[in-house]
Amino acid sequence: MSELRPRADGPHAGGDTRETARIEAFSDGVFAIAITLLVLDLRVPPQASQVPLGGWLAAQWPSYFAFVDSFATIGIMWINHHRLFTLIRRADHTLLVLNGLLLLGVTVVPFPTALLASSLHRPDARVAAMVYSGTFTCIAIAFNLLWHYAASGSRLLDRRVDPNAVRAITRAYAVGPALYGLALGLAVVSVTASIALTVALALFFALPSRPRAAV
Amino acid sequence: MSELRPRADGPHAGGDTRETARIEAFSDGVFAIAITLLVLDLRVPPQASQVPLGGWLAAQWPSYFAFVDSFATIGIMWINHHRLFTLIRRADHTLLVLNGLLLLGVTVVPFPTALLASSLHRPDARVAAMVYSGTFTCIAIAFNLLWHYAASGSRLLDRRVDPNAVRAITRAYAVGPALYGLALGLAVVSVTASIALTVALALFFALPSRPRAAV
Amino acid sequence: MSELRPRADGPHAGGDTRETARIEAFSDGVFAIAITLLVLDLRVPPQASQVPLGGWLAAQWPSYFAFVDSFATIGIMWINHHRLFTLIRRADHTLLVLNGLLLLGVTVVPFPTALLASSLHRPDARVAAMVYSGTFTCIAIAFNLLWHYAASGSRLLDRRVDPNAVRAITRAYAVGPALYGLALGLAVVSVTASIALTVALALFFALPSRPRAAV
Amino acid sequence: MSELRPRADGPHAGGDTRETARIEAFSDGVFAIAITLLVLDLRVPPQASQVPLGGWLAAQWPSYFAFVDSFATIGIMWINHHRLFTLIRRADHTLLVLNGLLLLGVTVVPFPTALLASSLHRPDARVAAMVYSGTFTCIAIAFNLLWHYAASGSRLLDRRVDPNAVRAITRAYAVGPALYGLALGLAVVSVTASIALTVALALFFALPSRPRAAV
Repeated sequence: MSELRPRADGPHAGGDTRETARIEAFSDGVFAIAITLLVLDLRVPPQASQVPLGGWLAAQWPSYFAFVDSFATIGIMWINHHRLFTLIRRADHTLLVLNGLLLLGVTVVPFPTALLASSLHRPDARVAAMVYSGTFTCIAIAFNLLWHYAASGSRLLDRRVDPNAVRAITRAYAVGPALYGLALGLAVVSVTASIALTVALALFFALPSRPRAAV
Repeated sequence: MSELRPRADGPHAGGDTRETARIEAFSDGVFAIAITLLVLDLRVPPQASQVPLGGWLAAQWPSYFAFVDSFATIGIMWINHHRLFTLIRRADHTLLVLNGLLLLGVTVVPFPTALLASSLHRPDARVAAMVYSGTFTCIAIAFNLLWHYAASGSRLLDRRVDPNAVRAITRAYAVGPALYGLALGLAVVSVTASIALTVALALFFALPSRPRAAV
Repeated sequence: MSELRPRADGPHAGGDTRETARIEAFSDGVFAIAITLLVLDLRVPPQASQVPLGGWLAAQWPSYFAFVDSFATIGIMWINHHRLFTLIRRADHTLLVLNGLLLLGVTVVPFPTALLASSLHRPDARVAAMVYSGTFTCIAIAFNLLWHYAASGSRLLDRRVDPNAVRAITRAYAVGPALYGLALGLAVVSVTASIALTVALALFFALPSRPRAAV
Repeated sequence: MSELRPRADGPHAGGDTRETARIEAFSDGVFAIAITLLVLDLRVPPQASQVPLGGWLAAQWPSYFAFVDSFATIGIMWINHHRLFTLIRRADHTLLVLNGLLLLGVTVVPFPTALLASSLHRPDARVAAMVYSGTFTCIAIAFNLLWHYAASGSRLLDRRVDPNAVRAITRAYAVGPALYGLALGLAVVSVTASIALTVALALFFALPSRPRAAV
């Protein structure tokens, strides 16, 4: 509501920085919690278990695999969020709602992760792989919505940001939904191929391909 | 205790900003954790389950529905909290306690959410719907207590805030307890109507009705 | 290690504020998470439960009671921590370790809370009440250790803090271990009296007894 | 991607501080959550338990022991992370990824902690002790990777940091993987000796050996 905005000559006239600061702090909290809750799905053997501990743990490999894949993916998403907000300087209600959509996707991640880990041995594991890659597809779409809204006409960007940088990000982000959507489609055919693609995407974004790459 | 307050000519003479900053940081943490803990009630099928995965997941729709409804409601509450604290510049003991009451309500939300999700199939689901809308009613009341205390005579507000803006917020916030109270009353008659109202309220606050709306 | 400290003429010459800032941020995180994890012990009825929902929930009153008592106690402790760090301006290794001891106590609270809630119906509930009040006694002692270390000879305090204020806090904090220790002793005789004292202490600190009280 | 970096003459020309600030905030969140989630493995007796409460709790000593050991170790790691980032002033993509590796190790800690607590009574407890000390070894290695990358040629350090201080940290950190690796090796021979070493390391780092030690 526009009434909530202090007058431009008020003490917050330059206060937009403070506003995105609190959005970033809240988002950081949600990312940090979602990434840490993943550990709750790493289980210890039941008290009565007679299976040797080493063997029991080794049999849990799908849990460890899903944990690392999701950790890396959420971590990469946090880096991307962090980068966008070095360029976004102002906030409005729509940005808050779009950021909320993005965070909704991020908080959900521990669920498809647990689902994937617990279903890899099942004949219908492809349903779990579809939910898993589908979640990442939705998050990638939310990232694009957020960025397009903020960057369109430089609506919420720092005015001194290089327009070429903005266009480069727009191109780079458009690839996300396509690639995660491909992982979603692959899941119907091959669970292994679908998951391998999500791993490859995390690695691709984690390992910068160009030595000159900087934050 | 007044002794705890550094002297006005001390290094914190202008330090009230810092004080609300830490209240905001603590509140952000609580909001972020409460909103993220909601995911812990999205369950995976038991190991021995023979039901096809797609069907099993589809049958869990009340959990997904309750998750999104509560996520949206806590998200909107965070936006409101964020807005209030762009106007509140000073803090005292009573504000801390009232903010604590509000956060008590927010941290509870995962419980009525899980209760609602697990009870929708029961004949006495209206008890769960009453607890759910009752929790939101209490939070809406706590918001009003906090705002009235801070705004009364501009007690803790930034002195340059427009009095018309203060009155507009006071009017807007008074609607919250009334509408969530209505959802509480509706739950006795119709669980569906009560929950639909909580969804409508989240959507209403998320989608600004006026194109000129800003933060 | 002293080598880790940038030289006094370095860019951090005035950087002590930044250092306590990160201690506060980390502590805020721990307080916020501990207070929010309390909700995980509010349970929903098992799927197969035939008991009417209202009756089932009412029978869980010890959980709700313990939740609110612990929430209020952690909340008051956060307010106290927040107040101390408006006076503490510098940090050293010992302060970090003492603050860690305090946080150890705070993170434990969800455990005695769940223990108390699940044991109130047992004949040996006084063991749970002793663990509960004993935890708070330890935290109160840790608060005193932290404050004495920081305030002794104004070691880490803002130099402009009023010495009378420091003495007043020292006196006020000495009461904590005594009163929570009393609750611990009372638990041997009467579980009800012990718990009532912890509630009374939370209320006493939450409701300022003197109208002039400020942060 | 270098395009994401605002031009050096932009409003962020001096903004590197802000960048590490958000890395620290995210890391603080992860440390705070991981350290607090440890409490979820402190269990209350099952409802039907007939064992006296005191005896039941006493039998859980491995859980309390593992809780305190892991709490202290994560706490020490947080202090170290905090110290490094008083020296690191700039960030790039590689630093973010190395910090992510470190945080991956930290978020995992509640799992080997629960594993150790639940396995101490088993004949094959040494597997759990190896996972436990192995996790800390990996975290110590990640710390070294992070520090070497940042400090090599003063790549990301505050330019006014004393080179002797940098060399002292490099020497001190090299000890970590060696000592935790020793604990890992000891676990094969003696579970008790391995765990005792992890406790000794936490105490050694918590209790500064030199009275002149400062942050």
